[in-house]
Amino acid sequence: MTDGTTPGTLGVGGFAELDTDRRRRTGVPEVVYGEGKTPEQTLRLLAELRRTDPRGPALATRCPPAVLDAARDAFPGEAVAADPVGRTVTVGALPPPVGDVVALTAGTTDLPVAGECRATLAALGVGVRLVADVGVAGLHRLLGHLDAIRDADAVVVAAGMDGALPSVVAGLVPAPVIGVPTSVGYGVAAGGLATAAAMLASCSPGLVVVNVDNGFGAAVHAAKIVHRVRGDR
Amino acid sequence: MTDGTTPGTLGVGGFAELDTDRRRRTGVPEVVYGEGKTPEQTLRLLAELRRTDPRGPALATRCPPAVLDAARDAFPGEAVAADPVGRTVTVGALPPPVGDVVALTAGTTDLPVAGECRATLAALGVGVRLVADVGVAGLHRLLGHLDAIRDADAVVVAAGMDGALPSVVAGLVPAPVIGVPTSVGYGVAAGGLATAAAMLASCSPGLVVVNVDNGFGAAVHAAKIVHRVRGDR
Amino acid sequence: MTDGTTPGTLGVGGFAELDTDRRRRTGVPEVVYGEGKTPEQTLRLLAELRRTDPRGPALATRCPPAVLDAARDAFPGEAVAADPVGRTVTVGALPPPVGDVVALTAGTTDLPVAGECRATLAALGVGVRLVADVGVAGLHRLLGHLDAIRDADAVVVAAGMDGALPSVVAGLVPAPVIGVPTSVGYGVAAGGLATAAAMLASCSPGLVVVNVDNGFGAAVHAAKIVHRVRGDR
Amino acid sequence: MTDGTTPGTLGVGGFAELDTDRRRRTGVPEVVYGEGKTPEQTLRLLAELRRTDPRGPALATRCPPAVLDAARDAFPGEAVAADPVGRTVTVGALPPPVGDVVALTAGTTDLPVAGECRATLAALGVGVRLVADVGVAGLHRLLGHLDAIRDADAVVVAAGMDGALPSVVAGLVPAPVIGVPTSVGYGVAAGGLATAAAMLASCSPGLVVVNVDNGFGAAVHAAKIVHRVRGDR
Amino acid sequence: MTDGTTPGTLGVGGFAELDTDRRRRTGVPEVVYGEGKTPEQTLRLLAELRRTDPRGPALATRCPPAVLDAARDAFPGEAVAADPVGRTVTVGALPPPVGDVVALTAGTTDLPVAGECRATLAALGVGVRLVADVGVAGLHRLLGHLDAIRDADAVVVAAGMDGALPSVVAGLVPAPVIGVPTSVGYGVAAGGLATAAAMLASCSPGLVVVNVDNGFGAAVHAAKIVHRVRGDR
Amino acid sequence: MTDGTTPGTLGVGGFAELDTDRRRRTGVPEVVYGEGKTPEQTLRLLAELRRTDPRGPALATRCPPAVLDAARDAFPGEAVAADPVGRTVTVGALPPPVGDVVALTAGTTDLPVAGECRATLAALGVGVRLVADVGVAGLHRLLGHLDAIRDADAVVVAAGMDGALPSVVAGLVPAPVIGVPTSVGYGVAAGGLATAAAMLASCSPGLVVVNVDNGFGAAVHAAKIVHRVRGDR
Amino acid sequence: MTDGTTPGTLGVGGFAELDTDRRRRTGVPEVVYGEGKTPEQTLRLLAELRRTDPRGPALATRCPPAVLDAARDAFPGEAVAADPVGRTVTVGALPPPVGDVVALTAGTTDLPVAGECRATLAALGVGVRLVADVGVAGLHRLLGHLDAIRDADAVVVAAGMDGALPSVVAGLVPAPVIGVPTSVGYGVAAGGLATAAAMLASCSPGLVVVNVDNGFGAAVHAAKIVHRVRGDR
Amino acid sequence: MTDGTTPGTLGVGGFAELDTDRRRRTGVPEVVYGEGKTPEQTLRLLAELRRTDPRGPALATRCPPAVLDAARDAFPGEAVAADPVGRTVTVGALPPPVGDVVALTAGTTDLPVAGECRATLAALGVGVRLVADVGVAGLHRLLGHLDAIRDADAVVVAAGMDGALPSVVAGLVPAPVIGVPTSVGYGVAAGGLATAAAMLASCSPGLVVVNVDNGFGAAVHAAKIVHRVRGDR
Repeated sequence: MTDGTTPGTLGVGGFAELDTDRRRRTGVPEVVYGEGKTPEQTLRLLAELRRTDPRGPALATRCPPAVLDAARDAFPGEAVAADPVGRTVTVGALPPPVGDVVALTAGTTDLPVAGECRATLAALGVGVRLVADVGVAGLHRLLGHLDAIRDADAVVVAAGMDGALPSVVAGLVPAPVIGVPTSVGYGVAAGGLATAAAMLASCSPGLVVVNVDNGFGAAVHAAKIVHRVRGDR
Repeated sequence: MTDGTTPGTLGVGGFAELDTDRRRRTGVPEVVYGEGKTPEQTLRLLAELRRTDPRGPALATRCPPAVLDAARDAFPGEAVAADPVGRTVTVGALPPPVGDVVALTAGTTDLPVAGECRATLAALGVGVRLVADVGVAGLHRLLGHLDAIRDADAVVVAAGMDGALPSVVAGLVPAPVIGVPTSVGYGVAAGGLATAAAMLASCSPGLVVVNVDNGFGAAVHAAKIVHRVRGDR
Repeated sequence: MTDGTTPGTLGVGGFAELDTDRRRRTGVPEVVYGEGKTPEQTLRLLAELRRTDPRGPALATRCPPAVLDAARDAFPGEAVAADPVGRTVTVGALPPPVGDVVALTAGTTDLPVAGECRATLAALGVGVRLVADVGVAGLHRLLGHLDAIRDADAVVVAAGMDGALPSVVAGLVPAPVIGVPTSVGYGVAAGGLATAAAMLASCSPGLVVVNVDNGFGAAVHAAKIVHRVRGDR
Repeated sequence: MTDGTTPGTLGVGGFAELDTDRRRRTGVPEVVYGEGKTPEQTLRLLAELRRTDPRGPALATRCPPAVLDAARDAFPGEAVAADPVGRTVTVGALPPPVGDVVALTAGTTDLPVAGECRATLAALGVGVRLVADVGVAGLHRLLGHLDAIRDADAVVVAAGMDGALPSVVAGLVPAPVIGVPTSVGYGVAAGGLATAAAMLASCSPGLVVVNVDNGFGAAVHAAKIVHRVRGDR
Repeated sequence: MTDGTTPGTLGVGGFAELDTDRRRRTGVPEVVYGEGKTPEQTLRLLAELRRTDPRGPALATRCPPAVLDAARDAFPGEAVAADPVGRTVTVGALPPPVGDVVALTAGTTDLPVAGECRATLAALGVGVRLVADVGVAGLHRLLGHLDAIRDADAVVVAAGMDGALPSVVAGLVPAPVIGVPTSVGYGVAAGGLATAAAMLASCSPGLVVVNVDNGFGAAVHAAKIVHRVRGDR
Repeated sequence: MTDGTTPGTLGVGGFAELDTDRRRRTGVPEVVYGEGKTPEQTLRLLAELRRTDPRGPALATRCPPAVLDAARDAFPGEAVAADPVGRTVTVGALPPPVGDVVALTAGTTDLPVAGECRATLAALGVGVRLVADVGVAGLHRLLGHLDAIRDADAVVVAAGMDGALPSVVAGLVPAPVIGVPTSVGYGVAAGGLATAAAMLASCSPGLVVVNVDNGFGAAVHAAKIVHRVRGDR
Repeated sequence: MTDGTTPGTLGVGGFAELDTDRRRRTGVPEVVYGEGKTPEQTLRLLAELRRTDPRGPALATRCPPAVLDAARDAFPGEAVAADPVGRTVTVGALPPPVGDVVALTAGTTDLPVAGECRATLAALGVGVRLVADVGVAGLHRLLGHLDAIRDADAVVVAAGMDGALPSVVAGLVPAPVIGVPTSVGYGVAAGGLATAAAMLASCSPGLVVVNVDNGFGAAVHAAKIVHRVRGDR
Repeated sequence: MTDGTTPGTLGVGGFAELDTDRRRRTGVPEVVYGEGKTPEQTLRLLAELRRTDPRGPALATRCPPAVLDAARDAFPGEAVAADPVGRTVTVGALPPPVGDVVALTAGTTDLPVAGECRATLAALGVGVRLVADVGVAGLHRLLGHLDAIRDADAVVVAAGMDGALPSVVAGLVPAPVIGVPTSVGYGVAAGGLATAAAMLASCSPGLVVVNVDNGFGAAVHAAKIVHRVRGDR
């Protein structure tokens, strides 16, 4: 039954029904979520996305090593970027960046999440600056970067453990702030749920939150804001 | 020690240290959170906010009935709005609305949360349209409103129980979507935590989430987006 | 003491007491749950089921690779089906299918759960159609299949993450809908508990739920409905 | 915007958008959920349902005392049933019952949940028999009723605390069994979540579960089965 | 059997066995926990403590209004302090304060917890300064008080919601910092558990935590530190 | 259908099916659980129990004030004991006590749980001694009673908060020890679940646990031990 | 400091302080918990236990394969039993069994827990009978063994998933029943916590519970009961 | 952007921004948290810390084996200590110890946590004594060490499972007591959360708690106390 004859979809191998209409509806194209898929499935879907939507690169997130290793050979003649830290694969040339999103991390070990965010924004054609390791245990590290953050279109803040950094940032700048709880932590913070709760419970007005380690989702929300700001609707 | 001599703060009665600098830093002024405060404290703080920041109305959220009832008499000569559904009190004339935010609710009983959101946006000078009771059990109700939603600067979706409505909306429109889980529900959904989790786990890219029943926070994030879109930085 | 002399039981090797009376009581025969059993135990129990209940095939679920690999050689002369995706082994010819159950998945990675469901229905002699990857992030994918779903005897919907798809389906069709939360997800959805909660809290009347990843249980409930519908009591 | 001009909906007072198309789509009409609504809202919605769908009675669940007390006077000339135990109000004559559903309770204190289930089935025109207080602490109580249960179209089992009764029933009869965890319990069982988990984790194949105290949802699922069995599609 | 003949104990009315030896063992005397006790029991125990340990005042925490109201009349001729915010009753003259503990609160609504802390420290003869409403949403409020905090013997920080303030403080001062999560919050922070988790997961080294709302426990730990610092062992 | 014609049961008013065979099967008669029942139901069931099983008194636990107040008048000519602390009602003369169970409490506020335990043991004809307020904050209080505890047939230990007392006791005596977590506590211990977990996780071998506040269940287990010890089988 | 000079203890290698006095105090000797210890530590402690308490065998539980494999060679000339299912090692001849404990399992995969229980009882000199795979999905399996269970000194019931079997057993026999929740299960039952909760919430009076998979603890409690019953105090 | 030009920070390789000002602010220098970092990152950061802060040794915690193995060769000519139990690496000579902290463990398997605590205190120049395996199952083991504990500047108590030991200690000595819940345990205690809750809920006044397995944090708090006691401010 999954023959893809529904308009706006593309049935692939009986295991997927690609949403080829998503960019038109939401401004953001379909992306491959690599977790739980076989490497063959992920590479096949990247190829189909690249083929059906040539307006921008095809992106896969949460790629296992087998996909990261095989990506370049699988798409000869294409610009392919495989990021082993952020676990993303991008097939096709990046669009020129528009807008200004800042991605902060509280610690070094939050970098994979910020990396997923950065690769997603790049694939969506949004400009992004990364500032690492400015958590609240040494507040002056953040304050030293504040002027650069203040005027961003949006700020993404990845933090694990106490999840305090996004609250501090949201109290200091006018830009919309998106908190990404990370699974960096142990004991009561193992898995990132306590961190997510701390961000949701923020006393700083207007902080919004995505799922644990969801750098991709934060990037898409930030990109939608940039699209609004830059008149792309 | 709480004498308010720190610049940008105002000590009030030994029980509060108002952040009179917040509008300058973040674009959004200090607001009184009425829960857990005595009516006297809330009214006193409203008066101080009104006095120190005449650029816009003073707002209090989560007001108990005693505050809602007393507000009009407490501020003679002022425009006072007290909303018993959303539990907000606004003191001072509303600014002319700028921008376009749509607030959706999945059910009738989510209206208090949407009300808090609407009053906050109004106090911040942001335009807001409210669409009630369009949950996924009868999907055609939402689809009938889709054209009106698509071009909003931001969409706030309040939903309890399964929390599915924001995911459906985020898959259909280019506007940034903010999900507000509500405490409407029982059993596994009591308190709104399962609803919040469902929104955080959304399969629709870019959905962001605030705390349960936090219509205020969703409004502030939406207002920050509107400020970005309308060039107010 | 486990000598199997209790009528309706069969003691096996001191480690199991097969319920040989279950088909008579409930319409559904005893099935081997492979998780936590040694391959030898699972294969031994399949053989005993096959021997004592020749009315239908013997089924084992949650089979580790060792069982999947060994199954065909272990039952020479029998029709043996081993599904590495759904992790099931069926020994004996499938009965001709009766009735019509539709199994939907929200994403590609929910396919193992739908596979367990499909193999179980097939072993029970119930007809099943599979529709993959029609989650709510791209709602039109589901709507394109709606006519085919509407008249099923029962609909099984496997979904992870937000668990929203079963709620949407249950609001659209008259067939009884069974939600299967899957462990596909991360962060707040890790393990599938938030997904299960979202389904239990559904605002769509009549949605029922089974345990996380329990494609088998959903199939048995659907089969019992088909038995009722087809007059098999 | 909530003017109800979307086909298949009826806007009511700005606070609700009744799904007047639900019976056509799913076989079960829209029902008023009384929790969190004002008595005026519930009575108003009952009146609108009664007016727009004369094929059957209008039903409200989770009614507070004020609705239960006012219902009879609010609908002069109508058959009105108000059940203070199950907290339901039915307006309009009951249809002649079709099919056979058995509702069991583990204890006396589970009766409100079974009452909600019974009233819903009656309003939907489904026959229902109630058997109270047959929990597993005294198993012979259940066994004495077994012959009467076996041939039902569906069995609904409401239980609190350990939630063991539905598992025992599902192991004994061919009828589809729907477990309703109740909030009857304390300590680790307070709120019914542990009870719900026990039912979802049942070792009896095919047991399905609804939310805690959701007698209404169990009834709708049972009714959908009866509709399938009795050829009403 | 509870005749209090065990040395170092005093049986009271069959319902309590006062630990009259506690001050000798731990430096801190037995205190009455008023929650769950009848007013008569609390007042009786205060009297017995006062009688058997005249070295310092007798203290009761978590006092219901009935105890707060009756305390003064119950101890004629004694210095009695009843604090309705912190819910403490102190019977007997306060010792001259030694040492320097600073108690901070993130918000106005955390004051009851800080009040319990302050009254406990006062009863134990420890000096305490209170700084209210300096949460991280407006960080400059804290920074304005930093010089006064830095040299304290210990710092107690009461915060609800995101629980971020103690982490920020612990990263800025050499004094030992004790975080007290409060039950101020809602949604994911309801009850204070998420707040407690955020503090335990702090990225600031050396932050220690007590139970939610346990201003008393924080005070006792701080007092033990002061005893060490001031050579009182 | 609830006509009580099943042997060993007695249908009562359509709302209960008393298990009149329980004493024969388990050595312990049916008891009325008063929570969630109307006072009329509880009193009616007490009367039926008293009538059908004259070998011992009838017992109701978790009685609301209305039952406690009405009990004496409801059973003229009977020995009636109503305990407002333990919330039990006993109708009929107590049997002479056999065996020796010691019930300890960690604090004064655990007394209601110990009271339910004591009343249950008394109704079952088991001897019981109560020792209150010997928690681990002042360990010498317990040690002073140790000789009296050591030779009991069983020891029941009710404790809230940290739940440490049963572990300490189980490491000191040869008697079987039953821990009863109580709901005495706040913050992380609110509701008693953390306390129950601490007891289940005990490092003292052989400690067993019942539900939070379940003094009744602990008493029944202790009584079953006494029945074994005293040869009553 | 850990030189073992405290009477009743034996310092071992700086990493352990064996409780050589435990048998005298509680009737049950110190046992080695192998989880988290190196194989060398476990074997060293077994040797010390064997040397210092020759009245019975030395027992280690939760032994990793390295200990199970090495045990026989490590104790030449001793009777050594190593059970790879229950993961226990016993060094020294078993005492003649006294008393009668029955250990039931709901399923085949609960056997490791029952094995730990059986080995512990054997080492403690208590008689034990094992009955496997009699869960509630096929109730007649249990009923066929009931006469053999009824007169036991104690009954241990290991069950995973719904945890219903101990409740059913406790409603049928006069023997004290100890439930052991097992980690057999998935989804909502993963880890065994839901199973433990179901047992604690049992509606069958007198059921007591130990930690998940704690066959050892159940055995010790049963042994203490046997000691009481057989006059060994 | 992470060029480390902010005063008091040092940008390292784009992945870290070392807080070189921390010792001045808090009395405790920056430490490398090895979990989630590559061995290269950890060794690089150790080198930078050693270079920029020669006043004391550089410390890394949670080191994977690759770091422990490489440490000595990576720092030729330096005093290097690598502890495989506590998983710490110290580079540079230890300062002469000042003050007196006692670290207790409840069991042998808590030693890694105590080891992390001990290495941290040693690196900070604080004297520490270790007492292992004195849990509450054999209370006399603790009591034998009590005199040595009583006069410590601070006591750190690491315990898993029931977490009872810190409560017992805090009730016996005047020293400030810091509880470290460990992840030693299974079932309801798996992960250490129940253990942490038990410590937070302690009935012994003044017990403070750090995150599960956070021996480092306990050491820093203890060191801050020692700094206060020894006049180092």
